[in-house]
Amino acid sequence: MSGAVCGLRWQDGALELLDQRLLPAKQRWLRCASAAAVADAIRDMVVRGAPAIGIAAAYGVVLAARAAYAQRGSDWRVAVVHDLEIIAAARPTAVNLAWAVQRMAGCFAQIAGDPEPVLLAAACAIREQDITTNHAMAAHGAALIDPGSRVLTHCNTGALATGGHGTALGVIRTAHAQGRISEVFVDETRPWLQGARLTAWELQQDGIPARLVVDGAVAWLFARLRPTWLIVGADRIAANGDTANKIGTYTAALAARAHGARVMVVAPLSTFDPATPGGEAIEVEQRPKQELTCLAGQAIAPDDFAAWNPVFDVTPATLIDAIVCEHGVIEQPDTARIAAFLAAAGR
Amino acid sequence: MSGAVCGLRWQDGALELLDQRLLPAKQRWLRCASAAAVADAIRDMVVRGAPAIGIAAAYGVVLAARAAYAQRGSDWRVAVVHDLEIIAAARPTAVNLAWAVQRMAGCFAQIAGDPEPVLLAAACAIREQDITTNHAMAAHGAALIDPGSRVLTHCNTGALATGGHGTALGVIRTAHAQGRISEVFVDETRPWLQGARLTAWELQQDGIPARLVVDGAVAWLFARLRPTWLIVGADRIAANGDTANKIGTYTAALAARAHGARVMVVAPLSTFDPATPGGEAIEVEQRPKQELTCLAGQAIAPDDFAAWNPVFDVTPATLIDAIVCEHGVIEQPDTARIAAFLAAAGR
Repeated sequence: MSGAVCGLRWQDGALELLDQRLLPAKQRWLRCASAAAVADAIRDMVVRGAPAIGIAAAYGVVLAARAAYAQRGSDWRVAVVHDLEIIAAARPTAVNLAWAVQRMAGCFAQIAGDPEPVLLAAACAIREQDITTNHAMAAHGAALIDPGSRVLTHCNTGALATGGHGTALGVIRTAHAQGRISEVFVDETRPWLQGARLTAWELQQDGIPARLVVDGAVAWLFARLRPTWLIVGADRIAANGDTANKIGTYTAALAARAHGARVMVVAPLSTFDPATPGGEAIEVEQRPKQELTCLAGQAIAPDDFAAWNPVFDVTPATLIDAIVCEHGVIEQPDTARIAAFLAAAGR
Repeated sequence: MSGAVCGLRWQDGALELLDQRLLPAKQRWLRCASAAAVADAIRDMVVRGAPAIGIAAAYGVVLAARAAYAQRGSDWRVAVVHDLEIIAAARPTAVNLAWAVQRMAGCFAQIAGDPEPVLLAAACAIREQDITTNHAMAAHGAALIDPGSRVLTHCNTGALATGGHGTALGVIRTAHAQGRISEVFVDETRPWLQGARLTAWELQQDGIPARLVVDGAVAWLFARLRPTWLIVGADRIAANGDTANKIGTYTAALAARAHGARVMVVAPLSTFDPATPGGEAIEVEQRPKQELTCLAGQAIAPDDFAAWNPVFDVTPATLIDAIVCEHGVIEQPDTARIAAFLAAAGR
C-alpha cells in the first residue's frame, strides 16, 4: 500500500469500500459481504476508476465462491456462475472489470476444497500488481518533469481509482516527493466533480500544495500561471494513440498545446486497444442528463432541460507528448511507435 | 420590452428585481424601495450582467433622489451624494454601473422641483436605449449565421443580463426567429452556473431548442456535433480586440478554432476600451474560493482547499472572427480595424 490514502480494504471476511459518492463531506466505509453487494457498489459508483473497479470485482468473486461453497460444497463452480455474471455486468464499459473476473475464474481449475484462501490470494495479487504497475509508471513519468514545475490534472486517477498510489496522480505523488512539482492545479471535472471531491481530497491528505480551478478556466490557467504539464489517465488508447478519457481531457489538452505546455497520458499497458485503429472508432457512452441538471438533489438547471452528457472525450494523439506505462514512455505517440513499443513489451 | 423574459421592473414606486440567485428553482421578485436596497441587490448578485446592473443603478438613483427630496426639499442634490456613492461602489469593476450613475447625475442640473418624474424618465430611457441597442446588434449578428446552424453560447447574456432581448443571446433569439439556428448548446459556466441556471431558463421560456453541456465538453462538442459558431458577450474589449469575458470564454474559443467554427463577440460600443492596448493590460478580478468549494451550502471540495477563481479570462483577438455592436460588424478585428470602426461610429 502507498501512503495514507486507501479506498478499498478486506476486513473480517468482507470487502469494505470508502463511499466515493460522499467524499469529501463524509468518510463512510460501506461493507460488502456478498457478490451482489459488490456489484451494487460498482453500479452505484461507491467505487469508480477502472483499476479499482477491477480489484473490487476480484474480491467480489471471492465472496461469490465462498457463498457457493457453503451452499453446494464441491459443486461450487456451478453455483458461482450466476454471481460472476452479475459482477461482470455491473459497469458494462469497464475493461478491467471483465478482465478481473476472467482472471479470477482462470484460477478455479486448480482449486481443491475451500476456494476462499486461493481466490483471496489471487485478488490480493491483482491489487498488489496494480500498485507495482503504478509505482513503475510513476517513476517513468516523474523523470519527464523538470524540478519545481506546476502541473494540471483532471478527474481522479489516484489511490481511490486504483489499488493504491494512482496512475496520473501516482506520477504527481512521486514527482512531488522528488521536488519536481511545486504546485498542482486540479480542475473540478463536472459533472461528477471527481477533481474537486476526490483528487483534491487525496492531495490534501498527502499535503501536496494544490489549487482548484473550474473546468472552463484551463486556457486562462495555462496563459497566466503557466503549468508546464497536463497529466491525465486514460480509459482506452487506440492503435494510433488517440486517447479516450474523462470528458474535459481534450479541452484541457487543446489549452495546454496553445501555451506550449505538454500533455502526459499515464495508463497501464492493458489500456491499449490495438484493435481500434483511431479515436473515430471509439464508442462514447452517454450518461443521463440528470447529472447536469441536479446536484445533491438540488435543481441547477430548469426541469426537463435537455443535456448532451458524454462520459468520455477522445484526445487526438497529435496533442499527446508522452504516453507513460509500466514498461516505459512512448514520446510523440503514433501507430508505428505504439506498435513497436507493444511488441517490445510482449503484447 | 422584448418577449416574455424580463428580470427588472418599476412597480408602484419601487424597483423590483427577479432574484437571479434563486433561478431556475424559484421565481421570486425582490422589491427595492431605497438606494441602499438597490446597492445591496447589485452587490449580492440578485441582478447581474453589466447592462442590467447599469439599469438597476439608474433606478437606484431615482430612489435616492426621491428620499433626498422628501428629506431636504430643494437641497436634495446635497443629500443625494452619499447614496450615489453607495450605488457606484456596489460592484467596483462594472463599467456600466459608474456610467449609469454619472449619466443620471448629469440630469440633476436641469431639474426644478420634484426630481422623481425627470429621473424616472431618464432611467427608463437608459433601459429603452439598451433594448434598442440589443435589437440592432441582434440584426447584425444574425445576418452572419447560415440557416439551420447549431451554435454554442457561454454564461448569460440574455434579457436577465440586459434591459431586454440580450447581447449574444439577443443574436441567438433573432437568428432562431429567422430560421438560422436549429439548436443552441449552452455550457454550464461554473462556478456561478449562469448558463445552466439562467440561459437555459431563458431559452426554455422562449421555446428555443437547446441542450446543456459541461464546460469541459466544449472541445468534444465541436468535434462531434459541429456547432458552427461560438457566440458570447464581452465585459471589456481592448484596442486590439482582445476580449475580457466570463471565465471559460477563452477555453471555448480555442475549442471552436480547433474545429473551424467561428467566434462572435456581441457587445455594445460602450464595451470598447481604446485606452487599453491589449489583453495583457486588463486586470482580472479574483473571486472567493468558496464559489468553487461550496454549492448551495453543500461542500463539494475539502474544507480549506485553495482555489484559483478569476471571474474573467481574455480571448486574444486572433481567435475572434467578428465583433458585433450596434453600429455593425468588425470582422477579423485588430487595432487598425477597430480604430477605424470606432472613428466612423463617432467614438
